[in-house]
Amino acid sequence: MSTLGDGDDRTWRLVEDLFPLHRAVTGPGVRATLARVAEEIPLDVHEVPSGTPVLDWTVPDEWTVREAWIEGSDGRRFADISQNNLHLMSYSRPVRGRFSLAELDDHVHSMPDRPHAIPFKASLFGNSWAFCLAHNDRVALAEGDYEVCVDATLEPGSLTYGELVLPGETTDEILLTTHVCHPSMANDNLSGIAVLTEIGRRLADRTRRYTYRLLFIPGTFGSITWLAMHREAVARVRHGLVLTGLGDASSLHYKRSRRGSTEIDRAADIVFRDRAAGDRSIPFSPYGYDERQFCSPGFDLAVGRLSRSLHGEFPEYHTSDDNLSFIDLAQLNDAADAVDAILDVLESNRTMVNLAPEGEPQLGRRGLFTSLGGGIDAKSFEMVLLWVLSDSDGSKDLIDIADHCKLPYSQVVHAADALEAAGLLEEAE
Amino acid sequence: MSTLGDGDDRTWRLVEDLFPLHRAVTGPGVRATLARVAEEIPLDVHEVPSGTPVLDWTVPDEWTVREAWIEGSDGRRFADISQNNLHLMSYSRPVRGRFSLAELDDHVHSMPDRPHAIPFKASLFGNSWAFCLAHNDRVALAEGDYEVCVDATLEPGSLTYGELVLPGETTDEILLTTHVCHPSMANDNLSGIAVLTEIGRRLADRTRRYTYRLLFIPGTFGSITWLAMHREAVARVRHGLVLTGLGDASSLHYKRSRRGSTEIDRAADIVFRDRAAGDRSIPFSPYGYDERQFCSPGFDLAVGRLSRSLHGEFPEYHTSDDNLSFIDLAQLNDAADAVDAILDVLESNRTMVNLAPEGEPQLGRRGLFTSLGGGIDAKSFEMVLLWVLSDSDGSKDLIDIADHCKLPYSQVVHAADALEAAGLLEEAE
Amino acid sequence: MSTLGDGDDRTWRLVEDLFPLHRAVTGPGVRATLARVAEEIPLDVHEVPSGTPVLDWTVPDEWTVREAWIEGSDGRRFADISQNNLHLMSYSRPVRGRFSLAELDDHVHSMPDRPHAIPFKASLFGNSWAFCLAHNDRVALAEGDYEVCVDATLEPGSLTYGELVLPGETTDEILLTTHVCHPSMANDNLSGIAVLTEIGRRLADRTRRYTYRLLFIPGTFGSITWLAMHREAVARVRHGLVLTGLGDASSLHYKRSRRGSTEIDRAADIVFRDRAAGDRSIPFSPYGYDERQFCSPGFDLAVGRLSRSLHGEFPEYHTSDDNLSFIDLAQLNDAADAVDAILDVLESNRTMVNLAPEGEPQLGRRGLFTSLGGGIDAKSFEMVLLWVLSDSDGSKDLIDIADHCKLPYSQVVHAADALEAAGLLEEAE
Repeated sequence: MSTLGDGDDRTWRLVEDLFPLHRAVTGPGVRATLARVAEEIPLDVHEVPSGTPVLDWTVPDEWTVREAWIEGSDGRRFADISQNNLHLMSYSRPVRGRFSLAELDDHVHSMPDRPHAIPFKASLFGNSWAFCLAHNDRVALAEGDYEVCVDATLEPGSLTYGELVLPGETTDEILLTTHVCHPSMANDNLSGIAVLTEIGRRLADRTRRYTYRLLFIPGTFGSITWLAMHREAVARVRHGLVLTGLGDASSLHYKRSRRGSTEIDRAADIVFRDRAAGDRSIPFSPYGYDERQFCSPGFDLAVGRLSRSLHGEFPEYHTSDDNLSFIDLAQLNDAADAVDAILDVLESNRTMVNLAPEGEPQLGRRGLFTSLGGGIDAKSFEMVLLWVLSDSDGSKDLIDIADHCKLPYSQVVHAADALEAAGLLEEAE
Repeated sequence: MSTLGDGDDRTWRLVEDLFPLHRAVTGPGVRATLARVAEEIPLDVHEVPSGTPVLDWTVPDEWTVREAWIEGSDGRRFADISQNNLHLMSYSRPVRGRFSLAELDDHVHSMPDRPHAIPFKASLFGNSWAFCLAHNDRVALAEGDYEVCVDATLEPGSLTYGELVLPGETTDEILLTTHVCHPSMANDNLSGIAVLTEIGRRLADRTRRYTYRLLFIPGTFGSITWLAMHREAVARVRHGLVLTGLGDASSLHYKRSRRGSTEIDRAADIVFRDRAAGDRSIPFSPYGYDERQFCSPGFDLAVGRLSRSLHGEFPEYHTSDDNLSFIDLAQLNDAADAVDAILDVLESNRTMVNLAPEGEPQLGRRGLFTSLGGGIDAKSFEMVLLWVLSDSDGSKDLIDIADHCKLPYSQVVHAADALEAAGLLEEAE
Repeated sequence: MSTLGDGDDRTWRLVEDLFPLHRAVTGPGVRATLARVAEEIPLDVHEVPSGTPVLDWTVPDEWTVREAWIEGSDGRRFADISQNNLHLMSYSRPVRGRFSLAELDDHVHSMPDRPHAIPFKASLFGNSWAFCLAHNDRVALAEGDYEVCVDATLEPGSLTYGELVLPGETTDEILLTTHVCHPSMANDNLSGIAVLTEIGRRLADRTRRYTYRLLFIPGTFGSITWLAMHREAVARVRHGLVLTGLGDASSLHYKRSRRGSTEIDRAADIVFRDRAAGDRSIPFSPYGYDERQFCSPGFDLAVGRLSRSLHGEFPEYHTSDDNLSFIDLAQLNDAADAVDAILDVLESNRTMVNLAPEGEPQLGRRGLFTSLGGGIDAKSFEMVLLWVLSDSDGSKDLIDIADHCKLPYSQVVHAADALEAAGLLEEAE
């Protein structure tokens, strides 16, 4: 896909700036990433010390790598992280020494079925080191000795995450998260970081019924750490969305919360229906990104996930082919628009009660046909008004009504607003 | 469609007699219509004074028109209601004077896409006058002045409706209604008037578990007025049916009540299944005829609607093409048969309890195989008996059982009657 | 179908030995049948006296037949039960005398549409006698007189049934039944007798959570008698299965219990899904075998039925064509395997609760990936573990989980066992 971003676009500049940083679950890469995001939105950065017990886990030691490469007997260096930070398996333990090709080979990952690409590997608990090579390069290695350098430390430090809280009219929260722990891969997950940053900018300017909490966290460890340490905030979460993999060419996928028909699940359904762009909803499964933690049965939050190509189902996944040319600014912006639309539904959705429920009220004398929004004629708007009046018996919210009458959610909200202003509807207790 | 009615048929004579009458929401046309129906069934006629507050509305003034026509400078009269009462927009305000063609044209309705037909228009609240012409005639009008006459009055009077109450063994009511406010159109709604009149005749001769209330009412205003003024009767309504548009060539449509699975909805389902005539059930929508009022959330009555072609979906709708040649006596009679069948189901449906529920009772020694109705062999009837015994655990009524076992409702009732007579079933509390 | 059984197979030898016996609802044929089964499994044989009131019925008199034949004027005997015991209508009353062809013909059954086969007929309450002939033989009968002999008695005796109770860890019971009242027909029902006998052998050797009760009973009368006389045992029945018609070439049919989604219904569903052999589930109907009695609304037990070709839907049904060449040992063994699999599910199914429900627990440090069963890799097993953890919130049992995650039930049980051993799950109260 051709890159539609240009040098002037803030989202694309963010992506370009973040791409080279050497991120891992912990360490300086995450800090540099959050610092760059903080230039766009007022992020608070938190540090949680290594060794802190969090749920069934412990905050891991911090991993810092300075250099890593292999040098052949001909003096040529390769697999150098200064060329591509995917070359080093994340959390590789330090090593310096000479290895025969056979010995080296035990520490090399490559992909025979995608021989030109470098795979991404990580091993927090493996207590070893490894390099990742294009398979073509691996098979070309000559017999002989190789000098190997991994200048890295794994020692107590902290886990770092970024947070932006935007207060609303209520303390009920909408939680929006993305993971910041992957090295130089564009779709997984600079796309998520870029879209969440854009959403942060947009939310700052809008009236908010809900309080919004945006989390930029390392995957798994970040969500587990946040859940463990913020019980009160967890209890206030009404809806949530994990954002990842939003820049590729696919239409959108919404992965439902574990409960399956929560308000945000229904909001995504109605947005997808009205977008009519071929987006699809998929059921929850306990595999994927941080929704695994948010939706674990002990929390069971109403958290869904928005992605494009499904994780692991596109061949560029977790390889050096997931680079800047794999994603597209227009797709990032479209994803932000979809998130916006879902948040619009959550902000406006409510259950109304018809205050003149016996027979149809006279709409004409209340001037309801003159309150038309753009692009809808009086006859069509009358139908929306009649549906909202008929269905507002306290058993259906506006999403349900839009779903039931097969009319656009935006028109249903507009009709509900007009009827409420005319004194014909009020919000249910 | 060729007209199957002949001069000797009471239903067809009624339709022919009613066709020329100039009906509107209020006024002498409705009174003449009800007087003619009262020659067939013992109708009570009620008058409700203009200005009476009814729910969110007020009973309108009474409209009476004596003559209405346009005369060209050549002295030729046209658009004369003595030729076709559709020529005058219903509730046109009085006018007498000379108008240029341009001035006149602001007061003319026609249909460019159906240029030979006169449209039907009405405007209670428009405070204006208008004529309805075939588009072919409209475009042929020459320049020049036109003399216009609408000799009409709109002044306090009353809203008129007809009612026939047929008491039953219980005071629980079945409400059957049709609208009587449309001028010379056959399907909309002489068909409804004719079928309801025929049902009135048939009901007089049958044993009735339910009390029946037949209402011949002006649309919208009539149902709102009746609902507003008969709270006690409203509370006794168990099932109801709005009848309209029953004479055209289409198969039947049953529009479900707002609640969607009430007993009459299920009765219509099983009748349609057993008729096997391609009839179809459609969901409730808050647009249509008087079911809009009966099913409004404050009343939420179990009222469905029976029609053939759906309102607004046949091109003859609300035009002079909806005339006597558009409807057919056989279709009217078939519709009456379908209403009858639905009422038969409601009369006979009940929930039974098996009094010998442990194992199968011995059917042979109770002579149950000799109680066969016409057209069913012993083996088939045994199956019906076994289904009724198996399903009569208090959770299913006879409609549910017929639906469950996929056997004709009439056989299920017959089996239930036989088993009850044999002491093997009794009606649930 | 060619017979796969050989002389050494216990199941096939049982079928061959039982085939010639002259079974009826009561009498010596049933006793001989049960005596032969008792050589395979330790059956208790019960006798219930004629005249005992059982539910709506009475235990019938005992029918014993010594000889029955017809002799033509040429001295040739035919329709002799020593040739095929289907020749005599079951429960024929005794007769000896001379009859014209016309008189005889009133006492003959044959099948014009299957002219080479002898039909099976029975008439407990008919108080008459009849012979069953191949239609080809019937039409070849010459005019003249025929000597008829039915040397039978119908007098007070008893109803006989066999029972094997295998106690388990709990007194909750699984009821497995088959009917033993049909004369020389292989699929209906030597197949059921053979499979239930095989299940009895297999159950003897396994750990049993449930107590098992195997009933070898005459159809209808046997189940009604047992239900009437064992109220306490009836109350302990948790699941049950009627076995019949299991030897023909068809795939399996599971007929659901009347309640339709009991645990054994769901167990059969998941077994059929995992077998992937084209087996099908059908809804309950009040016609068929002893499930009619067990599922009658006063008992409403969770009893399903396992068969191959549906009763009455194969042309060999209730004819002399249902002989040993119509069934196949491999099909009998496959049916026993399916019963075994259903019982395995019932034995292992339970509802678990996740004891570390907040976030995902660390699976690696608990060694859960080394507890793999045969034929599943670590990554696939991780998915099963995650599903079981995610779904174990007390609302789903293991069958529900296997259904939900679309993974084999055996893997779900294996994961649940491993997680329980690791202290991450416990059985719900």
